Amino acid sequence: MKIYGDANSGNCLKVKWVCDRLALPYTWVEIDTMKGGSRTPEFLTRNGWGQVPTAELDDGRTLAQSNAIIRYLARGSDLIPSEAYRAAQMDAWMFWEQNSHEPYVAVCRFQAVYLGKAVSEIDPNLLQRGHIALAHLEWHLAGARFLVGDAFSLADVSLLAYTRVAEDGGLELKNYPMVRRWIADAEQVLGLPPAR
Amino acid sequence: MKIYGDANSGNCLKVKWVCDRLALPYTWVEIDTMKGGSRTPEFLTRNGWGQVPTAELDDGRTLAQSNAIIRYLARGSDLIPSEAYRAAQMDAWMFWEQNSHEPYVAVCRFQAVYLGKAVSEIDPNLLQRGHIALAHLEWHLAGARFLVGDAFSLADVSLLAYTRVAEDGGLELKNYPMVRRWIADAEQVLGLPPAR
Repeated sequence: MKIYGDANSGNCLKVKWVCDRLALPYTWVEIDTMKGGSRTPEFLTRNGWGQVPTAELDDGRTLAQSNAIIRYLARGSDLIPSEAYRAAQMDAWMFWEQNSHEPYVAVCRFQAVYLGKAVSEIDPNLLQRGHIALAHLEWHLAGARFLVGDAFSLADVSLLAYTRVAEDGGLELKNYPMVRRWIADAEQVLGLPPAR
Repeated sequence: MKIYGDANSGNCLKVKWVCDRLALPYTWVEIDTMKGGSRTPEFLTRNGWGQVPTAELDDGRTLAQSNAIIRYLARGSDLIPSEAYRAAQMDAWMFWEQNSHEPYVAVCRFQAVYLGKAVSEIDPNLLQRGHIALAHLEWHLAGARFLVGDAFSLADVSLLAYTRVAEDGGLELKNYPMVRRWIADAEQVLGLPPAR
């Protein structure tokens, strides 16, 4: 399998972490999205959305969307709860990540890290929505070790990706002790060095 | 099962359509989100995000996020491809719906229908992003009857919800003949009268 990704992108790292955790062999193909690497005619044949990550299976078939890719790669593993209701709770977090977390937490970081904006130049509305997402995580994690009860799952992989580097985009984590505890726990499960 | 929803919300209708299609019994509990019905202390015990739709199973457990709910309710049915790769393609469309379609196509409609804005008052950037999403659907549907090959799936349910009423938000469909053909086909599968 080939993974086309940008090693600075949380969405791409989700795929790397799941492969590493499950010992799935892969070749990482680094794509420089800022130089249009995901929009070349050749790349668009792999992913019509022109996005990374893109997984290319050994038979040549490709898959898009980080959360869909990890859900496929982790099927049958302990990263997806075997009980249908628990799996649905995992899915709910992963859809929430795409509609209410990543568009703010990742975009603030993108503007700071990729576009070189100072925090004071980031749209205050984006920062506010980012804090709303982090506050929701804080509230939930006060009552649970991981996002779906006590078992680490793809929900944690998905939300970890941009939460652990939220401060890159001006979203300070100092007022979210439960989130910081969860980040450390999740990084430990994945064998990652602390992001901060 | 109870479904807490707003009958004018595409996200809520996804759940209704799947229940109707699969003949799953449910009681619909109408929630007026514009009057704060999803943010009462009682409602927040069912869904910490304060959102509709929310499904309350017969044992009292609840589920959030429209796409996670329909993925749970339709498990084992022909609305989810049995082949893992095809199911992953379905998931990719559903995650894309939440990150790149609903935030524009649904939000334009929300501003027009719920907030009473004229199309000229809607943020041109939202309209542009909505057209980018619609153009992608058009491109894909030129080569496929439904979103995942020739078989109707939850990907079609998910994308149909706001695409069929995109014109409510000023996103004219006249230049998207493949999208209009697909809307008619999907409405026919679900037994819905034409939205327009």
